[in-house]
Amino acid sequence: MSARGGCSHVMSSSLFDYEPRDWRTDADGQLRFALVGVGWWTTEFVLPAIETTDGCVTTTVVSSSTEKTDRVRAEYDSVAHGVTYDEFADGEAVDAYDAVYVCTPNATHLEHVEAAAEHGKAVLCEKPMEATVERAERLVAACGDVPLMVAYRMHTEPAVRRARELIRDGAIGDPVLVHGENSQPLLEMIEDPDQWRLNPDLTGYGTSVMDLGIYPLNTARFVLDADPVRVQSTMDSTHEAFDEVPDQVATFSVVFDDGTHAACSSSQHGADHTRLEVVGTDGRVVLEPAFHMETQLTVERGGDTVSFDTEGVDQMAEEFEYFAQRVLADEPLYADGQHGLVDLKAVAAIHEAAESGETVNVE
Amino acid sequence: MSARGGCSHVMSSSLFDYEPRDWRTDADGQLRFALVGVGWWTTEFVLPAIETTDGCVTTTVVSSSTEKTDRVRAEYDSVAHGVTYDEFADGEAVDAYDAVYVCTPNATHLEHVEAAAEHGKAVLCEKPMEATVERAERLVAACGDVPLMVAYRMHTEPAVRRARELIRDGAIGDPVLVHGENSQPLLEMIEDPDQWRLNPDLTGYGTSVMDLGIYPLNTARFVLDADPVRVQSTMDSTHEAFDEVPDQVATFSVVFDDGTHAACSSSQHGADHTRLEVVGTDGRVVLEPAFHMETQLTVERGGDTVSFDTEGVDQMAEEFEYFAQRVLADEPLYADGQHGLVDLKAVAAIHEAAESGETVNVE
Repeated sequence: MSARGGCSHVMSSSLFDYEPRDWRTDADGQLRFALVGVGWWTTEFVLPAIETTDGCVTTTVVSSSTEKTDRVRAEYDSVAHGVTYDEFADGEAVDAYDAVYVCTPNATHLEHVEAAAEHGKAVLCEKPMEATVERAERLVAACGDVPLMVAYRMHTEPAVRRARELIRDGAIGDPVLVHGENSQPLLEMIEDPDQWRLNPDLTGYGTSVMDLGIYPLNTARFVLDADPVRVQSTMDSTHEAFDEVPDQVATFSVVFDDGTHAACSSSQHGADHTRLEVVGTDGRVVLEPAFHMETQLTVERGGDTVSFDTEGVDQMAEEFEYFAQRVLADEPLYADGQHGLVDLKAVAAIHEAAESGETVNVE
Repeated sequence: MSARGGCSHVMSSSLFDYEPRDWRTDADGQLRFALVGVGWWTTEFVLPAIETTDGCVTTTVVSSSTEKTDRVRAEYDSVAHGVTYDEFADGEAVDAYDAVYVCTPNATHLEHVEAAAEHGKAVLCEKPMEATVERAERLVAACGDVPLMVAYRMHTEPAVRRARELIRDGAIGDPVLVHGENSQPLLEMIEDPDQWRLNPDLTGYGTSVMDLGIYPLNTARFVLDADPVRVQSTMDSTHEAFDEVPDQVATFSVVFDDGTHAACSSSQHGADHTRLEVVGTDGRVVLEPAFHMETQLTVERGGDTVSFDTEGVDQMAEEFEYFAQRVLADEPLYADGQHGLVDLKAVAAIHEAAESGETVNVE
């Protein structure tokens, strides 16, 4: 990281010796992965990211489409196995991988995690963990002693970790308020109006809070080191493609157990924008863009501003490296299943709050 | 205004010929003012601002403190009269002024506006109009045919007017979401824990929403050209100086009659910060700082950003010039009493929503 801007004397001594990878272990070796689900995210971001890591290698891809797995096998030398979901469940190529990354529609996570756990494989499961709280609880239970991590890539993003450390060190005084935003034009990104993110059988409670709102919610939890207590929400869907989901656009407020109040929004039908701000009694921390691949951190206090230019890590590589390091060293994983469950309970409460018009406790 | 930044060809033809003062009339002459209330705002901002205008002059100041009025008279040659509130009510120096500016604690606006209206003087009344909806309604009724304007200085801020025009012209597509923030460290600004903003008998429903939250609420109304339909809110007061008011910190959501959803916050116990953002289907408009004296406008669309450097108007001078021009020409005033009443109804609804935990309609 480098820093530019007004007044940096407050923290100059620690300005450049910050260690964003304090989670490193002494683990050697590589963790071999089966990637379950070969959609846009896996092919565009995950496969290339794993190639750049020291500790991870993709050996197996799982998809209903042989065409997709063949294409990946042709492109990546390390990928020796392309199997269907049924073959994966039946244990085909099970000796070729040590861990499973699940990146399929929300409501299908459970079956794939159950299979992975039966095979005794460590699990890295995309967020939200599942479509409903009840299914997420079953997912956690299915893992038992098998290592389970929910894939919040913000947790290993250096700018976010630095924001968290600054807040913890009192750089902005006591946190008071959070503003979080995450919007994108879903139908411009994926033109199909029948895509799974708009289908409640596959997405769960809805679309924008499950898919986007979970970022400000969870990243606020992470940087505040606090959990949600109660929520309110308003939602609306007007575009016909959003007929089956309530939250084309949503606002939601969250009161955290440290007394911080958050005002958040999510939209699948707005311009691309992400931002997370924590206002404290003495200053502000701003992540903007917050949840995309180029997270930028600014800290403001007493009229002075310090802007950090991150070195631009590949967030997926960072996350996979973390997971591999911890699993290989048999160290605890963060976020674990219980952490992920809290988010899903909060998302469920947000939807209940929007439907009832009342404040709902997260419990 | 000047513009810098990436891609400006979209609006280059109208980039510099924008007219922020399209409200000008052909009125000649000056409007002579009595300023009612000689606190920090009046002495620091209003008196100096009026000195710089063409159309306004201060002839009279009204305060319970003869020391204060004497000091103003010594400093400003035009100020010939210093009178007490009782003398003002009794009509002393009534021929020396044409209009009255009311800048006293919220719950005292009504009596001063009633006196001004009885004297047949045009009224410029600070926001919020009064402490409660009921008293604000009496204030509007008291004015009858006397011109009444509520002092929303954002309405004549060139950056805000430009934001409004850009939104109206479709620069960001259809508005989807608003994020509004207004926080300040009240007890650092005014150290007295017994100040009127913390006394419900004088401030009304509370402190941060009445005093600060009204800015994002009203400015959103102005730039969207929309009115609030329903609200939700959470509030908390933990510092002992805030014992009598519920909203040391508050978040509130507002659904507007154009379908836009707003997520807003206000705090009297946070770092100084103001921001208003409108996210549309195609881009974003950001005012940051929004509600202070140096409002800055940025427009983002398709990855390109246009930043406007305003020429830095004195917002109080601009507002007084507007008021004088319109009153002298006998033209309608914006915001009028009905406009101000809507805000007070929304603020009352926000407090009711926070207390009940339920969604409350603004009606």
